[in-house]
Amino acid sequence: MPKPACLTFRVPMRDPADTSGVAALFDSGRIRPEEVVAVLGKTEGNGCVNDFTRGYATMALRGLLAARLGVAPAATGHVPMVMSGGTEGGLSPHFLVIAVRRDGTPPGADGAALAIGVTTTHSFAPWELGRMAQLRETAGAVRRAMADAAIAGPQDVHLVQIKCPLLTQAKIEAARQAGRDTCTDDTYASMGFSRGASALGVAVALGELAEDGLSDAVIDHDHGLWSARASTSAGSEIDHAELIVLGNSTGWGGDAVIAHGVMQDGIDAGAMHEVLDRLGIAPVRGQLTGEDRARIRAVIAKAEPPRAGGIRGARHIMWDDSDINPTRHARALVGGVLAGMIGTTELFVSGGAEHQGPDGGGPIAVIAART
Amino acid sequence: MPKPACLTFRVPMRDPADTSGVAALFDSGRIRPEEVVAVLGKTEGNGCVNDFTRGYATMALRGLLAARLGVAPAATGHVPMVMSGGTEGGLSPHFLVIAVRRDGTPPGADGAALAIGVTTTHSFAPWELGRMAQLRETAGAVRRAMADAAIAGPQDVHLVQIKCPLLTQAKIEAARQAGRDTCTDDTYASMGFSRGASALGVAVALGELAEDGLSDAVIDHDHGLWSARASTSAGSEIDHAELIVLGNSTGWGGDAVIAHGVMQDGIDAGAMHEVLDRLGIAPVRGQLTGEDRARIRAVIAKAEPPRAGGIRGARHIMWDDSDINPTRHARALVGGVLAGMIGTTELFVSGGAEHQGPDGGGPIAVIAART
Amino acid sequence: MPKPACLTFRVPMRDPADTSGVAALFDSGRIRPEEVVAVLGKTEGNGCVNDFTRGYATMALRGLLAARLGVAPAATGHVPMVMSGGTEGGLSPHFLVIAVRRDGTPPGADGAALAIGVTTTHSFAPWELGRMAQLRETAGAVRRAMADAAIAGPQDVHLVQIKCPLLTQAKIEAARQAGRDTCTDDTYASMGFSRGASALGVAVALGELAEDGLSDAVIDHDHGLWSARASTSAGSEIDHAELIVLGNSTGWGGDAVIAHGVMQDGIDAGAMHEVLDRLGIAPVRGQLTGEDRARIRAVIAKAEPPRAGGIRGARHIMWDDSDINPTRHARALVGGVLAGMIGTTELFVSGGAEHQGPDGGGPIAVIAART
Amino acid sequence: MPKPACLTFRVPMRDPADTSGVAALFDSGRIRPEEVVAVLGKTEGNGCVNDFTRGYATMALRGLLAARLGVAPAATGHVPMVMSGGTEGGLSPHFLVIAVRRDGTPPGADGAALAIGVTTTHSFAPWELGRMAQLRETAGAVRRAMADAAIAGPQDVHLVQIKCPLLTQAKIEAARQAGRDTCTDDTYASMGFSRGASALGVAVALGELAEDGLSDAVIDHDHGLWSARASTSAGSEIDHAELIVLGNSTGWGGDAVIAHGVMQDGIDAGAMHEVLDRLGIAPVRGQLTGEDRARIRAVIAKAEPPRAGGIRGARHIMWDDSDINPTRHARALVGGVLAGMIGTTELFVSGGAEHQGPDGGGPIAVIAART
Repeated sequence: MPKPACLTFRVPMRDPADTSGVAALFDSGRIRPEEVVAVLGKTEGNGCVNDFTRGYATMALRGLLAARLGVAPAATGHVPMVMSGGTEGGLSPHFLVIAVRRDGTPPGADGAALAIGVTTTHSFAPWELGRMAQLRETAGAVRRAMADAAIAGPQDVHLVQIKCPLLTQAKIEAARQAGRDTCTDDTYASMGFSRGASALGVAVALGELAEDGLSDAVIDHDHGLWSARASTSAGSEIDHAELIVLGNSTGWGGDAVIAHGVMQDGIDAGAMHEVLDRLGIAPVRGQLTGEDRARIRAVIAKAEPPRAGGIRGARHIMWDDSDINPTRHARALVGGVLAGMIGTTELFVSGGAEHQGPDGGGPIAVIAART
Repeated sequence: MPKPACLTFRVPMRDPADTSGVAALFDSGRIRPEEVVAVLGKTEGNGCVNDFTRGYATMALRGLLAARLGVAPAATGHVPMVMSGGTEGGLSPHFLVIAVRRDGTPPGADGAALAIGVTTTHSFAPWELGRMAQLRETAGAVRRAMADAAIAGPQDVHLVQIKCPLLTQAKIEAARQAGRDTCTDDTYASMGFSRGASALGVAVALGELAEDGLSDAVIDHDHGLWSARASTSAGSEIDHAELIVLGNSTGWGGDAVIAHGVMQDGIDAGAMHEVLDRLGIAPVRGQLTGEDRARIRAVIAKAEPPRAGGIRGARHIMWDDSDINPTRHARALVGGVLAGMIGTTELFVSGGAEHQGPDGGGPIAVIAART
Repeated sequence: MPKPACLTFRVPMRDPADTSGVAALFDSGRIRPEEVVAVLGKTEGNGCVNDFTRGYATMALRGLLAARLGVAPAATGHVPMVMSGGTEGGLSPHFLVIAVRRDGTPPGADGAALAIGVTTTHSFAPWELGRMAQLRETAGAVRRAMADAAIAGPQDVHLVQIKCPLLTQAKIEAARQAGRDTCTDDTYASMGFSRGASALGVAVALGELAEDGLSDAVIDHDHGLWSARASTSAGSEIDHAELIVLGNSTGWGGDAVIAHGVMQDGIDAGAMHEVLDRLGIAPVRGQLTGEDRARIRAVIAKAEPPRAGGIRGARHIMWDDSDINPTRHARALVGGVLAGMIGTTELFVSGGAEHQGPDGGGPIAVIAART
Repeated sequence: MPKPACLTFRVPMRDPADTSGVAALFDSGRIRPEEVVAVLGKTEGNGCVNDFTRGYATMALRGLLAARLGVAPAATGHVPMVMSGGTEGGLSPHFLVIAVRRDGTPPGADGAALAIGVTTTHSFAPWELGRMAQLRETAGAVRRAMADAAIAGPQDVHLVQIKCPLLTQAKIEAARQAGRDTCTDDTYASMGFSRGASALGVAVALGELAEDGLSDAVIDHDHGLWSARASTSAGSEIDHAELIVLGNSTGWGGDAVIAHGVMQDGIDAGAMHEVLDRLGIAPVRGQLTGEDRARIRAVIAKAEPPRAGGIRGARHIMWDDSDINPTRHARALVGGVLAGMIGTTELFVSGGAEHQGPDGGGPIAVIAART
């Protein structure tokens, strides 16, 4: 019996609404619209509050998918679309289309192959966000997605990408009318709380942290607690969280595998070297050869400025720059470090890494063709 | 007879006017004020038109040096101070203080050591700027500085750092009244013309290009013509150009040497690998070890967005971003690439690389302790 | 026989895709979807190259309109949607929905009322853009729209809002292959040429300038030539131009009228005072009373930094600021000047005023309820 | 016996270090260096954390003043120099040099004339900042400066301009070592606390608020409490506060007077109309005539975005814009409103108005020639 195969396609975009590359995937028959299970996107906004490139890309993608499926755009909601704004430095805007083929003859050899599970949480009440309630629900959803993906155990999970809600003024008001309080009154700050609670939920589900030691008080506060495999982002357009779990499983038969690591700071090139090691790939004189680079399907990384102090003792100006947001500097830095080693700028580097890797660092994951 | 030694000190700054690190060099006796021959600085402005951190740092440095020498600030004009704005990504603001010790006992072994020559051109008439007149005068000054530095030949020059003037509205008007025209009427554009003419002057002096093939028409126009060793910046506060020539010479006896290379594009990590090779240094698993890193005295690089197309075919958004200037993106990118390999963010990465390396790339140079 | 009525509605938006205010207009029955003839929008992007809020708002609006009309979004192309990015200072993001009611009983008294005509030009060949060919075609279209609107003569036209195409790399390449040249090779610069040719076309159609004195050479060059009633913007998504002509006509019967004027510089409050005069409205102690303000339906203005010199001799920094684009400063300034007199920040202030009013100034128009 | 005269000079600057206009004042004999008692400056930085134009201008000014007085720059510390960054919109960079002539024959008639008093507070301990200790000390200093200026009573004070310190990491650490806590651990937030405590100190000294009702808890928290005459800014270069009190007094004999008012929101043009009324000046058709404008010596205003809601119900995007800091939008808006009425862009509009006027509004003051 053929095993399912998880297919990934890196598709450039000329602007946030340019879905022509995705349409070409469909037109060429490389994937069918109904095979798409998730889309990640690196769009060219500022990645901050007024970054509308994320919503614009999502609207365009849902429009395309709906047209190809012959349904209304709203009926594509089961396909998570996680757009991350910010292509600072040399980062290249692109989509990462993830599809599952269940009826093909997978080319892969024996052994574990890339596996994917997708699910959602329940809709969070405003007072659940950024707290243990969100954390626990997220942990449960991670386990559910793992089961869905036939991933044997936590050690085989290499990335959990989550899009989670945030507190809007309307939600804060609703909580107040219900006689409940919220984790914060600041909508911007709620993004960090929600990303953090999601990341800690991943850590619990994957056995990186014990739920016992956690409480509302540590969320977005005790940054010594973190997951090495969570990558979370917050968006105002949803009330529940969407989860994408990526790992390796012998139940899957595609030609790709995934590995992960953790950058200890923004210039920790060694961490990426180690991830590539695990995939049987090594830079030659500082950078992948063209042949090895062709094996790389996707590079996913989180970036953030260190909360205090410098980078290995050297002062940086990310927090003091009132013209460019700190997260923009951080993405540019990590993008440069990884581009130098990999030899491409099509990298999914996103910001806002609360409880995702150590302070100033962050998780990284690479999907590559099996050898 | 003791040979002179060229000493370099990398000094962090807390803000553009923070000269306390330089003062501490004097106070500790590591160098004497009269030994200072040049200062380079990476300041935390935007590196563009309204970057006043360059002038501010220069004013503060001249104030300190003048106080220590017991002269007026204006009397320190023989010491070039080349400030480059822009510490995007993780780049760390710092000064690079260069001194020459003529009476010490140099620690160095036999063989060539780091050598420095400093000079200025004549004051350029407005109609000379950005044209062959500036180019030829610059070439002559490079040769003069080489002689001053006892550098045997062009092959021993590894970096020519130049600060050159630009056209102001007042200069353009002066030209008009003299019945002469200028290379451009746009003051901002004149910066590129002046940097370009300076870089081509270096190329001629170093035998990289023949003067025959050059004319006013190619300056800031034919970007296939370039020097691998020029690093030039334009500033409104001067009428002449200041030159710093760095190379290796057996006439010098310090403990440092310099090597250079050329990045072919913004992610050409291999170019830096090669420069390190020449210094007997190699990254281990993607990055220098702490021991090797301690040997690095200075890293100098030019960065700029490719004029057309992407980076190895991948689209970048540097030219399309109306919020962040293209040169800021380019510095962030190259800063990340180099920080990943070197393992520090104290890097002198500057923008505006007309005729300095190929389109989208740029010269790099490293000063390191001799083994 | 009832005359047609031109209705205008100012609708706030919470984000560029927030069409709920427009939907509410339909739901409340105030207008029917098929009555909509044009939509102007002030969106919260940077108004420059990478401002995707314009496309996002347009995509959302066409989606809404198509859903209400029961057609595909592409079938709404006959309704011009002119989005202008940039709500600097205190400017408030909003849509201006313009509808024509042909079957109602207009409330208006005798005399001229607000009239609207909408049309498009042919699709421009790349070599026509920014040249006399575009100018002449635009002039013809203005005359056609005037006829369509039953506007008696040029003196009754008070605003011609145009959205025109620009040169993309693809179009420039197409011209080259056809053996033709284009007005510029710089896509950004082509926006100014196209806006300028459109504005001069308006000037010719309205008799402000004679076609005789015009040529390719003056377009975006001789800024002493201008229209007092053109407001043009360029966008990459179209090949033809869309025109909206607004004036007063006795053939129309709504309750609104329009008047216009020209700001001579960015702080020319007197020009707005004069426009209000013509509408029988006067500020009291520097600002409209609430009652008069309620009569204001729309305020439309163009803003741009003066090309040279200061504002009445005082230096401004719009051109020297490498962090904030000059047009953003200009919109903020003019927005403040007009908000101070009118008493609201819901103003359609847009940038890029080539041949639209004198250097540093620009046309202004006000639609108000008839007394 | 001749009365002292307070002289004010508005001097343009070409860049933050351009003191040539001030030097020209000295050279022309219009004022003598020793007559200078304070300098205000509007510099072209971002007005936020990394705005080094303030320090640069101050360094240049102290250098000039010291050279003219024949002292070291540090010996000019008794002359407050209050630089405010940010010339958004059309605001024009300029200095306002304030001098006192004690030996001249004042041209003024009888009646009160512009009076100035200058003083400093003690150096604040880190734990005093942003608290009642700072507030009370500031109130005492205001009273001292009033006495120094021979201003009869609080009703004759029209502006108290204060430069106050902020908490640096070093100060926070010093407090910790002393076993004391500070009002905040966030250095940026400490600027608001310090400005707020200073403003409330002014309110107490001028009888606008009773000290009884105040406590640490209200500072930068209860924004319903405010002074109509305080204008405060925080800077890291000082440990004490510098105060400039401006009012009218019969003990002074110059040709100028001052009046003040309060903008209720950012577009409250009526408030400026009222201030002008008090000076016997009225706009004609929305703007001052050239003759009246020539009477205006200085316009000083505070600007800030409203903390919640819009401007008269219309949404603004100041808080949501991650590209341009909110205070930059606010200065641009208020600058436009005031420039429209006054007819000049040489306006001292500064941001950060905690407890200075109502939420979203701010104090305004005008110095004008007596009639």
